[in-house]
This record gives sequence, structure tokens and C-alpha cells, in this order.
Amino acid sequence: MFAEIKGLNEECGVFAIWGHKDAASLTYYGLHSLQHRGQEGAGIVVTDGEELKVHKGLGLVNDVFKPEDFANLTGKAAIGHVRYATAGGGGFANVQPLLFRSQRGSLAIAHNGNLVNANSMKHQLESQGSIFQSTSDTEVLAHLIKRSGYSTLEEQLYSSLAMLKGAYAFAVMNENQLFIALDPNGLRPLSIGRLGDAYVVSSETCAFDLIGATFEREVEPGELITIDDNGLRSQRFTGKAPRAICSMEYIYFARPDSNIDEFNVHTSRKNLGKQLAMEAPVEADVVTGVPDSSISAAIGYAEQAGIPYELGMIKNRYVGRTFIQPSQELREQGVKMKLSAVRKVVEGKRVVMIDDSIVRGTTSRRIVNMLREAGAKEVHVRISSPPIKNPCFYGIDTSTTGELIAANHSIEEMCEMMGADSLAFLSVDGLTKGIGRSADEPNCGQCLACFTGNYPTEIYPDTLHPYAKV
Amino acid sequence: MFAEIKGLNEECGVFAIWGHKDAASLTYYGLHSLQHRGQEGAGIVVTDGEELKVHKGLGLVNDVFKPEDFANLTGKAAIGHVRYATAGGGGFANVQPLLFRSQRGSLAIAHNGNLVNANSMKHQLESQGSIFQSTSDTEVLAHLIKRSGYSTLEEQLYSSLAMLKGAYAFAVMNENQLFIALDPNGLRPLSIGRLGDAYVVSSETCAFDLIGATFEREVEPGELITIDDNGLRSQRFTGKAPRAICSMEYIYFARPDSNIDEFNVHTSRKNLGKQLAMEAPVEADVVTGVPDSSISAAIGYAEQAGIPYELGMIKNRYVGRTFIQPSQELREQGVKMKLSAVRKVVEGKRVVMIDDSIVRGTTSRRIVNMLREAGAKEVHVRISSPPIKNPCFYGIDTSTTGELIAANHSIEEMCEMMGADSLAFLSVDGLTKGIGRSADEPNCGQCLACFTGNYPTEIYPDTLHPYAKV
Amino acid sequence: MFAEIKGLNEECGVFAIWGHKDAASLTYYGLHSLQHRGQEGAGIVVTDGEELKVHKGLGLVNDVFKPEDFANLTGKAAIGHVRYATAGGGGFANVQPLLFRSQRGSLAIAHNGNLVNANSMKHQLESQGSIFQSTSDTEVLAHLIKRSGYSTLEEQLYSSLAMLKGAYAFAVMNENQLFIALDPNGLRPLSIGRLGDAYVVSSETCAFDLIGATFEREVEPGELITIDDNGLRSQRFTGKAPRAICSMEYIYFARPDSNIDEFNVHTSRKNLGKQLAMEAPVEADVVTGVPDSSISAAIGYAEQAGIPYELGMIKNRYVGRTFIQPSQELREQGVKMKLSAVRKVVEGKRVVMIDDSIVRGTTSRRIVNMLREAGAKEVHVRISSPPIKNPCFYGIDTSTTGELIAANHSIEEMCEMMGADSLAFLSVDGLTKGIGRSADEPNCGQCLACFTGNYPTEIYPDTLHPYAKV
Amino acid sequence: MFAEIKGLNEECGVFAIWGHKDAASLTYYGLHSLQHRGQEGAGIVVTDGEELKVHKGLGLVNDVFKPEDFANLTGKAAIGHVRYATAGGGGFANVQPLLFRSQRGSLAIAHNGNLVNANSMKHQLESQGSIFQSTSDTEVLAHLIKRSGYSTLEEQLYSSLAMLKGAYAFAVMNENQLFIALDPNGLRPLSIGRLGDAYVVSSETCAFDLIGATFEREVEPGELITIDDNGLRSQRFTGKAPRAICSMEYIYFARPDSNIDEFNVHTSRKNLGKQLAMEAPVEADVVTGVPDSSISAAIGYAEQAGIPYELGMIKNRYVGRTFIQPSQELREQGVKMKLSAVRKVVEGKRVVMIDDSIVRGTTSRRIVNMLREAGAKEVHVRISSPPIKNPCFYGIDTSTTGELIAANHSIEEMCEMMGADSLAFLSVDGLTKGIGRSADEPNCGQCLACFTGNYPTEIYPDTLHPYAKV
Repeated sequence: MFAEIKGLNEECGVFAIWGHKDAASLTYYGLHSLQHRGQEGAGIVVTDGEELKVHKGLGLVNDVFKPEDFANLTGKAAIGHVRYATAGGGGFANVQPLLFRSQRGSLAIAHNGNLVNANSMKHQLESQGSIFQSTSDTEVLAHLIKRSGYSTLEEQLYSSLAMLKGAYAFAVMNENQLFIALDPNGLRPLSIGRLGDAYVVSSETCAFDLIGATFEREVEPGELITIDDNGLRSQRFTGKAPRAICSMEYIYFARPDSNIDEFNVHTSRKNLGKQLAMEAPVEADVVTGVPDSSISAAIGYAEQAGIPYELGMIKNRYVGRTFIQPSQELREQGVKMKLSAVRKVVEGKRVVMIDDSIVRGTTSRRIVNMLREAGAKEVHVRISSPPIKNPCFYGIDTSTTGELIAANHSIEEMCEMMGADSLAFLSVDGLTKGIGRSADEPNCGQCLACFTGNYPTEIYPDTLHPYAKV
Repeated sequence: MFAEIKGLNEECGVFAIWGHKDAASLTYYGLHSLQHRGQEGAGIVVTDGEELKVHKGLGLVNDVFKPEDFANLTGKAAIGHVRYATAGGGGFANVQPLLFRSQRGSLAIAHNGNLVNANSMKHQLESQGSIFQSTSDTEVLAHLIKRSGYSTLEEQLYSSLAMLKGAYAFAVMNENQLFIALDPNGLRPLSIGRLGDAYVVSSETCAFDLIGATFEREVEPGELITIDDNGLRSQRFTGKAPRAICSMEYIYFARPDSNIDEFNVHTSRKNLGKQLAMEAPVEADVVTGVPDSSISAAIGYAEQAGIPYELGMIKNRYVGRTFIQPSQELREQGVKMKLSAVRKVVEGKRVVMIDDSIVRGTTSRRIVNMLREAGAKEVHVRISSPPIKNPCFYGIDTSTTGELIAANHSIEEMCEMMGADSLAFLSVDGLTKGIGRSADEPNCGQCLACFTGNYPTEIYPDTLHPYAKV
Repeated sequence: MFAEIKGLNEECGVFAIWGHKDAASLTYYGLHSLQHRGQEGAGIVVTDGEELKVHKGLGLVNDVFKPEDFANLTGKAAIGHVRYATAGGGGFANVQPLLFRSQRGSLAIAHNGNLVNANSMKHQLESQGSIFQSTSDTEVLAHLIKRSGYSTLEEQLYSSLAMLKGAYAFAVMNENQLFIALDPNGLRPLSIGRLGDAYVVSSETCAFDLIGATFEREVEPGELITIDDNGLRSQRFTGKAPRAICSMEYIYFARPDSNIDEFNVHTSRKNLGKQLAMEAPVEADVVTGVPDSSISAAIGYAEQAGIPYELGMIKNRYVGRTFIQPSQELREQGVKMKLSAVRKVVEGKRVVMIDDSIVRGTTSRRIVNMLREAGAKEVHVRISSPPIKNPCFYGIDTSTTGELIAANHSIEEMCEMMGADSLAFLSVDGLTKGIGRSADEPNCGQCLACFTGNYPTEIYPDTLHPYAKV
Repeated sequence: MFAEIKGLNEECGVFAIWGHKDAASLTYYGLHSLQHRGQEGAGIVVTDGEELKVHKGLGLVNDVFKPEDFANLTGKAAIGHVRYATAGGGGFANVQPLLFRSQRGSLAIAHNGNLVNANSMKHQLESQGSIFQSTSDTEVLAHLIKRSGYSTLEEQLYSSLAMLKGAYAFAVMNENQLFIALDPNGLRPLSIGRLGDAYVVSSETCAFDLIGATFEREVEPGELITIDDNGLRSQRFTGKAPRAICSMEYIYFARPDSNIDEFNVHTSRKNLGKQLAMEAPVEADVVTGVPDSSISAAIGYAEQAGIPYELGMIKNRYVGRTFIQPSQELREQGVKMKLSAVRKVVEGKRVVMIDDSIVRGTTSRRIVNMLREAGAKEVHVRISSPPIKNPCFYGIDTSTTGELIAANHSIEEMCEMMGADSLAFLSVDGLTKGIGRSADEPNCGQCLACFTGNYPTEIYPDTLHPYAKV
């Protein structure tokens, strides 16, 4: 929710529903609760059993959908998508769900994640005459399906999934069936719920709460689910691989009211804050968190440390994407956007500033500076996750290694660069312990690659520039 | 910030600057930080010493102003306004600053407040041939000025202010001078700051922080300030009246990082929460606040009561004004907008739910219900202000007396209507003590009329329907 | 219809209807047929007997009105207006009908023409405290009405008209009555028709044909007509003055299918062409006219002269107002907009080029040049009206005297400036004879001021810069 | 230009330029002069030698392109397209030029015409795994190119053209080369011109006049032209077939100022009118033509018959595509759009009404009726082309045979259906003679299929519903 400042951006959110006469409206509400996962574009494809109808566009869910748009979106099932533009760049052609029409029927695909072998596959497919309409890695799946040689979409999909590598949560729909697939490591979150007789699928469980649906279970790594008017069938398209759910979902991306593998995100974050207070205590007068994603951790730190939690910073709620940036001259004069320090709260105080993570470090420096200008006597920065030292290839738009501050500097150097009085990160152990996932699995079932460099899948040469423009 | 749910709406925010070459841009940033005071429309009028130029429109500051708009807004001084449509209804004609051009020069007016004798004056002026272009009470001042018989704007304004009654904070500008005026009771907040050599005026001090200006002092009740290239001059257009700053500014409207009469709003709210915890304690497991305006009070309550503060509810950040409302059918099925309960936080718990105020009570009922559906074992509602029993005639769009739940029901009845396990309000004494204003003044210098019915000014028959459409 | 090239622009078109349940739709169609009289803005005010409802905006009739806009415009009577921005400049505030609301009822005014004493009256009214919301001279009438001291709108209007000087055709409406007024000289055209029981009023009769109404009669100079549910009543607000209908209506402005004082415009123009052929014959191979307004005259010239009429120039139908102009460089390379010569028609030919009038002469020069580049052996320019030597103060935006080519140059000089082989204008006598109006009235009842300098009304000093920005 | 009334719609216009630094701007002007060939959408693709950049959209050229759009469209060559939606339906995806990007480079295609074997080829290509992004037949060429197996675009294109059947004029461009191809029968017009050193290609020569280019020659049937920085090379991709240029281009579609095979369109039309006057004379008082496309023929008829030509009908210039249609009730009351009769011209007269062609006959009936209502004593309809009895499969959206009035009724029946006093069509011989093309070629080198049923190419079963929605 703090994406523009942090430079740490999620790719997408996926929602699907089967068997409800208000499929499109419910998908709209679902996408709304997933809005924090992508603000570049949104779309819905609906099926009435005869044909697929689509509405999508660039912008927020509210910008893209107007009441009149739903008159045409009648049907019993739908898939929806919110997109943050990482792989493939922006533009209308990349807004999902992608819809492919042919004389034999239509096909819609919504995708959260990032394929690590997309470029190679695209190269091969183009050599064989395929023409891509988008620059998104998602379209690779459509071409694999069309060339699979099998006759049913289920078979086509099953065989195509075997060729994909990386992180993916797919919702695929034709006129009569909905398919849900999660990558073998389960890098992205994906849950199934029920709303009366209807099946609901969402990247995050907060969408279930919004529409009054009941959480049923998580989609399992390597699972291919088929939903149609006969109900739900599950099969595995791959053998067992260790779960490696993205840690950043707990730390930063997911909404506090979502649960991932039944762990509530707010609670996990608060525990990370408590853990951090135990690992890196400091004498101080107030604890404050960078809104919104660090509030839970800050409350936890404050509670554990016995220091009052205060609103030391205010986020400007109305800053939109078109906000006019102050010129350099005005910026130097002090014009601040997005965040303001609350002078009366921090003036003359020793402040613990909790942030959930650090990518390039520029934001942190600006916040420390802002707190000092507002009169803070000391500023102690505490980060409720370990240092990010490695890029992500699974759908999170961290910068390249060269830009990651923690990949190139010691903690002391970072502390000095930020102008903080002290700086401490949570340990990797503290992270896994704090989230509270089962210690029986490797890495407690988490992907920790951005902290440790241990990637759960192969990484290909062409992945090293995963977002190169085709 | 929770206006649509609560039905408690502020009228406006005013910003002005004199003596800075980036006057329009700085006003834009200033309005941005006042956005919470009005989302219906925004506008800026700038003077370059020769003519007044204007840009305004319906919508948020970001919707109304695009970078190219500033090319034309060159000048050394500007006044700006954000509007919430109360008196006079909506529509472009009412977006402020109002600009009046004549062969003798132009005049711009921005206004926060509500005149209690506007309808009578309008009637008289129309009888004398005046034609009103807006339905706003603000335009009355322009007609008084034009008919005053004096030759300088300062004299015209001085004599016209004598005829106004009610709450008002005015910024008035012609080609060469800026005037600032506050009503005799100082019902609305208005502060002066400095940015280098420039003078800055704002409804709230948070605008000073955003643009790097320094707070100088509050505008005094009954003060008329003239600012031009010779500097600032102050005079009184009325004798001393007791200050009666609107309590709801502290309780609900103002931004937590603003200070009013040097009391920080967040700190005041936190103290109201502490006070409430002392007045109305309860055995419970968690304290949670209705976001965003009740968070500070909730933290205060939790700290005082020694009960953990938790994020029990999440506000949907991306809900805009065009959001498509769920149909009755979908609503019954559970589709919720704007607020979600965090099930894992409240499930099986005894919850203290802090809200800052109650107007009609419908929102509170819905929130209590939502918390119960999310599994809360008990819900204890604590309100960090006294019961609102009387309408406001000074610019806050509370409902009529008939709709005010506290005007028509006992606390026990309200508790039952809400479905809460217990309900308590802060006392009026607790309110004045909590805010911390000087006890030397009557009501500690606050307007408490909505709680007590003691209005600091006369109220006229035509004020009783203050927002009647002309 | 060739306005952008010629620099000769009409001010407005007025339409009104009383007593038809589709009043707004019919006004919309009426405005559509008057679109050539003004393309800057359009508006409709409708009354249902209880209140006035308005819809207006900048742009063409089709841009301003969408089907859904008519849902709200229910009522039995309406007035409408298309505007070309002359007096008072452009901008939304000046789009008519102007609507004035007060506590005693509303008032709408639509106006075609130009008041020659507007500036003086405005000055006086402002001195007495009036605030003008537009910069249009039309608003003067509203202020006179409001200050008249009479109690009925009919009396107010009657007495106010006595104070106006210049050219005007007014439609004024309140909740219950429609008033139509024409200036004492009848400088602007205005006709009354019937559509079943309904009364229809229009600047041009072509609107009657479009909606299936029957022409009844012209509004007479100095006539004030009252239409309400009791029918139509006529009275004179001034003594008899000689009719002086604008000649340019026949020559250039009006649609060929309109009749003015029962003379068909196309037929008049064709006769002007015939007259011109008699006055200024020439040996030539083809006759061609500048589209669209000179086609009729060209056909007349060809018929009289016995020379074939050909499409020697084509007007680009799709050129809109937003057309991107070629850069100077591209222009020199030959990029032409709006008009193309038909090479195969003019190549090697002696061409008579008919134009209806010349203002600044720049367009004529460009057209002659274009014909030569397309291979014309000779180009003989024939103008179907006399030289324009004097500015118009009655609503036509001719340039100032300094810019009128015929005011500053002899015919020989003009011919050379244009690069034509010969140049001739129609005589003033030829003009009055060609149009065919009664020779019993002075000037055959026409205003010939732009040709002769004999203005039918007083002209005031402040009129000399009639379009000065206030 | 009368498309909405007649139901006879052209498909497209193509423009291309190579070797000019203002390539995009000049293409914009060129498209502007081709606007009459398609109003549904427009687009430009430009190459700077490194990459292809595109801008396109739905609407008129002026709606789609704004000045700022050209900042990005830098390059030395461009192709452009205006589209009328026939084959494949409307929608943004079908707006041309189509642009296909791949890892090996990009490819843009603009097309005027219609392939008669598109559906079969599409079926085959999809069976082999191709995914189509548009429903346009144009995309077939792209897929054939991608699958051709050759390595240069010239070879790929050469071999792909061999598989196409029907009418087509293609402009194909990659980063470094421009290709122009015309079908073996030359069914669509396409000309080459020079602008300094640059090469220019256009569907009609009027575009050359607009931008100051010089006509060089027509593209020959079956010719494939390659243009790059080395100049222009021509080759034939097919043996000689008889030219069969669409007759309707002369009769109705092309602009009067264009030349096709060096015959000027206006002159041809005028000659058709003269021919018609000889074949079907009638005693009458005035000749009038349906604007705009029948004006030339009407002038010819009048000249030959010695009857005065008059503006008997006026076309409403400002009727746009969004025009609000009158309800049935209003229509019956007489509300007319688009065309008005000029009462004073036709009243009491025997009128010859010239129209260029008749498709369904409904428009003619309405016009005859309109003339009678305006007082015409007799209405003699003369059509300057033979009866259309057969559908077109080459890109003109005539109705199906069942809807063609002349396919189902005798001339007497049609005359009665129209309510005319007499009706006559031009003979096929009169048509070929009137246009004036060489009698040495079969059909004088024209396609007369819509009159005679002799199609110059094979017609396939799937062509019989050529516009079926995929």
C-alpha cells in the first residue's frame, strides 16, 4: 500500500467465482478488496455458458467499472484480475484477464506470479509462427494450450502447466469450465471459499470476508482444480515439492485482515514487531510505524517494549497517482507529499521508527530526516524483516541487485546513510518464528530467497533480466 | 475522513498565501493537506498584481488540477478552497473561491463556515435587484461589499462583516490585497504562518508542515487582517466575544497532525481516549478503533486500560466516491464496503470498540454487527465524545434533530439498538478536560452546542432549515 | 459555414417553443438546424410550469446534448440557443440561455444580436451594486428586469427594452410565460411558426422545416410577444422605425433553405450571382464557387453567363475545430486544409471564381493561388456583394476597420494583392435588386452599414471597441 | 459521404510515405483527405529505422489524433489507415494499421479491400495453433507471413500474397522497408506519388493534392512494390489478369477531386449525368441532386438537358454520428435529419431528382416524399448508375441480395414504391461510356459485378456470408 515510496511492487491479484447469478458483481467486489495488489489495470471476464464477455481497462477497479458495465456482464461464472505492471510493461494490451477468441471457442486467463522461463518459451513459439498480442508472460500459456494437440481444455492445460517454471497462480476459463492452478512451490497465495453453492477463489482471503463467503482451504502447490456445473475436481499436475510461500506477503503485501495458510497477516506482523523488540531493544520515548504496512509491527514492538505507540507520521489519504510532484526548488523548500510527521508527537522525543522492509533505502532516509526536522531527539530505525539482498524473480518488482541497499552496504553504513541513531533488522530466524509457520518444513514453508539467495526453483539466464522489454 | 458512513460532514478548508512566486503551486499543496475537509470541489485564484486568474472544478484536488493548469496561474499571491457541499447544494457554480469581475476590478472569496442570517440577507438583497449566481451563502458577502458605498475594499469588507452572523473564516483577495477574517466567536480554526518572507494562512496547521512553513499564530476571533506588499496589518471589526472553537474539530474533523490553539489533535484525541477509559472502564481482551478518526482515541483507551490495542477493523483505502453499491440482495448476502473486521483478531474476544462520535447510530449498529459476525464474544462500544443532541448551524452537516439518535433515545435504548453489550459516552467535562484547553474561558473556549444546546450566537428562524434549497 | 477562413462570424441562433410535450427535443432539433449560426456553445432551458431546468455546454449541439440529458428536460415549453463567441469572449459562463434563479422565481434569456450601449449600462449597473456573472451583453437585460420596480415580468421586460439600443432578438422565459422581442429596426431575423397547437419561434425558418412546423409570420421590428397557456399576444414597445434587416444574412449567414421576409436565401443568392454576371461579365471556360456559401451565386452567375458551372474546389467535410494545423514548413510545402482545387477541372482553363464577400482578403489570395497551382490559366474573382468598408456593431464579428481590406485599398490594389486576373464586386444597387426586397422602404428594408457606413442606430463611443474585454 | 442514409459503405483508405522527416504529420493530412472512405477508426504506424511506433483509435482522424500525439511519432516513414467497419465488426482491436511485435522485429499492415477466402484460411491457421487478436481478415496475412518459412519480409510477403483471393490494396511495413501490393484484378484504387525525394502512396489522389505531392502512376494489378532507403523496386507476384476497378469508386465513393486511372471523378460523374440526360430525358423545371455525391451528375444532367440546376435539398453539415434520433412519434410529426428540401425552390415545380445509386430504396422513398411535402408538383427520379442487383464481396458493404431493391423488383415497381412520377437508371453501356475508360479492356477495365453478376474472381461458399461474426 506504500508502493510508490518503497519501490517494492506486487504483481497481481486473481479472483474467480463459479455458480452464482451475480458472478460479475461479486468479482467486482472481490477485485476491490484485492486492489492493493495492483493498481495499473483491472478486468473481468464472465461466462453465461455460451460465450465469454469481457470488460477491462487501465486504472483502479472503480475507474474501470461503472454501474452500466454490468448490464452486459451477465453469467454464472467469472474471473477477475487486478494488475501491477511488472513483467511485460504496461498498456491496455496487457490488462488481464487475457481473452483469446477462435472459431472453436474462447479462453480467458488471469495470472498472478512470474514465469522464469517465459522468454525462452516465447522465443520458441514465435519461431514456430505464433504471434503474441501482449508482452505479458501470461500469454505463453495460451499459445501452449493452442498447440498442445489435446482436445479438451483440461488436457491442454494439464500438459501445458508441465512446461512452465516459476511462480504462478492461474485462473483459466472457457465457456463451460473454470480451472485453477498453483505452481509446484506454492509461491503465491491462493484460497478457495464457498458462497452458498458457489465456489470462490481469491489471491487473498479478505475478499471472502467482503462478499460474505466462507474460507474453505488453500489451493495446494502443484494442484490443478476443475470447477464446472458438476462441482469441483482436484488433480496434481506435478509431484510434491516443498511449499515456499513468499515471505513478503506476510511482511508487506497482503492485507492485514487476510490469512495465509491460516496465519492472520496482522497478527504475524505484530509478532514480527514483538520479536524485533526482543532482538533489538532500545531506550526510547515513543514507537511509531510507517503507515500503513508497518503499523501492526509498530504496535507489537511498542507492546513488547512497554513504550507508548503513537501516530508519529500521517499518510495523506488522498494522494492519487496523478499527484503533481513539487519541483526540485519546492522540494528543497520543504514541500512533502504522502507522509507528514506529527511534530507535537515527536518533538524532543527519542523515537523508534518501525518499517517493514528496506529496498533502496531512499525512503527511509527521507523519513528519518522528516522526523528530525519535526524535532525528534533520536531516531532509531527498526526493520521488521531481514535485509533484502537478492532480487525476486517470482513476481515482485524489487530492484536489481545493484540497487538493493542491503546487498551493497553493511548495517553500519546503512545507518549512517539514513542518518539514524541506530538501525537493526529482524533476523531470518526471527522472521520464521514470528510468522509462526510450522518448523517441520524447510524454511518453515516460506520463500526466503530475497534474504538468503536460496531460490526454490531454477533461475535461467533470460530470467536475469526478467522485465526486459520484448 | 469517514464522512460517507457517519453523515457528519465538514464544510470547507481555506488556504491563502501572499508574497511567493510559487503561490499557486503552494496553494495546491496546501489544499491537498486540507482535502479531508471537503471533497466536492476545489479551486485556486491567483493574482499577479494586475488581474485575478482562476482554476476550479468539481472533484478532489488531484482531479481538478493538472500540471498544465499551473502554466496560467502565475502570480505572487493566491487563495484556495476545498468544499464539502452543505449550504446551497452542490454544482460547479458553488465551487470556491467565488470570483466576481467588474469593470472596476475583480474580487475573490473563499469561505469556511456557515452564516446564520444568510437567507434573510439574500432576500433583502434580491429585493433590491441583486442577482445571485450561486446558491452559496458566501456570495452574500460579495453583494454587501458591492453595495457598501465605501471606496476601498478594506472599508467595504470591514463594514460588511458587521452584518454577518454565524461562523466564518474568510479569505478575500483583489488584485493587490489579501484579507483574512474570522467570526467574533472564532468558531472555525484559522492560522497564520510564514514561509520565508511570504505569509501563509490555513484552516489547519498541517498545511504548514506540508509546504515547510512555520506556524506563527492563530487568527483571533473578530480579527480582520490585511496583507499586501507592505506587510500584514491587523484590526478588530468587533469587540471581544468569548472564543468558541468547534469541539468537533478536535474530536473528528481536523487531521491528527494539526494543532488548534496549539493543542495537537492526535494528542487531544488520545487524551479523550484515556479520559474515556477512566470514566467508562470495562473488562475486555482487545481495544479497537473505527478507522481512521478513532484510532488515536483507541490507542489512548488501550494504554490507559492496559488492554492490547489491535487492528480489529480495516478500512478499504481504494473506495472512492463512484464505488458501485451492492444491491439489497447482495448486501444481505454479506457484501461489505469500506470496512472489514479482522476475524483472527476479534474471534472469541471481548472487544472494546472505540468510535469518536455517533450521529444517527446506523453505522455503529453495522459495525457492532460486523464484529459479532467475525466472532467477537462481546462488543463494548465506547464513544470518545458526549452524545450529539442538537444540530449544528455553523457549517457542520449533522442531521436534523429528528435524525440524531442521542436526541431521541436514552443510552440504554441506543445500546440495545446497536446490539452492543455495553455503551458509554465521554462526559462533557471529560471532553473539555481531555482536550486540555484553558479552563479560564467559558466552556474552555469551545463550542459545545451540539452536546449542550448552548449556541454561542443567535439562531434565526430561517437558520432552522439552514440548507434549504433556494 | 466557412467562418474560420473568412473571419466573418455570426453571433447566435435562437429557438423557442411553447405548448408541446416534446418541447426540449424539438428545441434540440431546432438548434441543430441553426448550428451554422454558432458553434461555440449550445443550451436549452425548459419549463414544466413549476421550475426551469437547464442543460448547456461548450461545443456543437451534438457534443453538448446526449440522449440521457433529455430525461430531466421535461416540460411544455423551452428556449434554446447556439452561440458564436463575439461580445464578451468565450467560456462556459457565457453559454446561453442565461439562467437567473432567485427566491421569487427563475428567468432564462436567449439572445441574438449585439447591444450598442451595453458597456455604459453595465457600468451604471455595477455602480449601483450589480454583480455580473457573465461578460455577455445579454446579462444587462436581466439586471434591468430585476431593478425595474414592476411586478410582472411582462411589465419589467417592456420597460427594460426601452433602455436597450442596437440589434437584438430575445427569447425570455420564466416558469409560466415566454416572451419574444425584436429590436426596433429588425436587424436580426426572427420568425414565428405553428406545430399543431404549439407556437414555435426561430432565428431562421429552416428550423420549421426540420421539425415539420408551418411558417406563420416574421416577428416585427419593435414587437414584444407574450406566449402562455392562453395563447399569443402582441404589443409594440416602440414606435415604427424603418426595417433594416442585416444584408449579410442573405449574402452569407443564413442557410440556403431559410426564407427571410419570405425571400428564399438560395434564390436571393442565385439572383445576386445573375446580377453580378450582368454587372461584371468576363470571357471564361468555367465558373466555380467557394463552398459552401458561394455555390448558389456561382450557379446563378454560370446560368446567366452561359458558362458551365463546375466543382472547381472541394471543401473537406471532416475538418473540425480541433484540426491540427500544418507547421509553417509543411504549409510552404503545400499542405492545404479545408479546401482543395480539382486539378482536372481547372487545369488550362479560364476560371471565374465566385465568392460571396471579402473581409480581410487573405482567404481570397490563398484560393486564387491554389487555383493557379492547380493549373488555372486565368482566375477572375467575382464577389456577389459590395466591398465591406465598415465594421458591424450589431452582432457580426467583422474585423476592425484597419483590417478590412476594402476599407484601405482600391479594387485594383486588391486585385493585385490577390494575384487575380480581374476582380469585381456587386454594386449596392445590384445587391438590393438581387435580393428582391421591396424598393418602397429605405435601402429596401436592409441594413447596408458595412458597405455604406450608414448605421441605422446611434453608435456610442464605447461601441467602437464593442468586443473589448471587460 | 452519404453512407448512413444509403447503406452503401466503403471499407477503408490506405496511405503510406517513405523518406520524409515529417512522415507522421503528412500521413495524418493524407488520412484526413481519405476520411470519407472510413469513419470508424484511424491509425498511423511510423518507423524511425529502429522501431515501429503506433497511435490509433476509434473515431474520426481528428478525434484520434491530437497535436501531442505526434511528439512520439518521429521517423522517416509511415503507413496510415482509415477504417469503415465491414468485415469482422468494429472495436478497437480491428483498427488498422495492425501491429505485430515479436522478438525478431515488428510488422505493420494496412489494408483496403476484402479477402474472399479469409474464413477458410483462418480456420486452417487456428487449427495449427495460431491465435488471432482481431476479427479482421487482414490479420490472415500476418499469420501467413510468420509461417512462410522464408527469412526476409519480401520473400515472406511474396509467397503469402499467392494464397490470398479477393480485393486488396496492402501497405506493409517493418523497421526498414515499406511494401505495397495490389490484388491481381486491381479492384481497389491505389496510386504512387512523389513529394520531393519521398515516395507517397494513397488510395486516392486527392491526398497528393492536399500535401503538395505529385501524382506519378497507379499501382498495377498484381504488383508488389518494395520501397526502402535504396529507392523503389517493383515486381509482379502474379501473371496478368484483366483490370477490374470497382465502378462504385467512380459512381459514389471516391472524392470528386480524385483521379482514378487518370479519369477525374467529378468529370466522370458529370458525364454520367449527361449520359443519363440523353438516355432518360424528361420535361421538367429544375434539376436537383442528392448531396453530396450526386451533385456532379445533377449538374451534368442539367447542362445536357438545358434545365436549371438548383439547390433543391440541403444536407445538414453538422450531423455527427452521435446525433440523437427523433422518436417514432416525432418522426411522424415531421422531424427530419440530415436532409432538408428547399421549399421555395421546389414548390410548384416539376423536379428531376438525381441520385447516384439505389441500394435498398428506402432513402429514395423518403427523399421523394420530402420533395412532395415541400410542394414539388412532379418528382422524376434519375439514377446515374445501373440497378444494383448483386452483392459485393470485395469490400463494399452492400446489403444481401434479399435487401437489394433492384434485385427483387422491376423498375415500374420501384417507381411506385418510391412514389415517383417516373424512374430511370443509367444503362451499363452508358456507365462505361460515361466514365470514359478504354473500351479495349473487358468491361472497360471495370468491375461491374454488382450490376451484372459477373464477378472477376472466384467466390467461395464461406464468402457468401462474408461478414459473419467469427
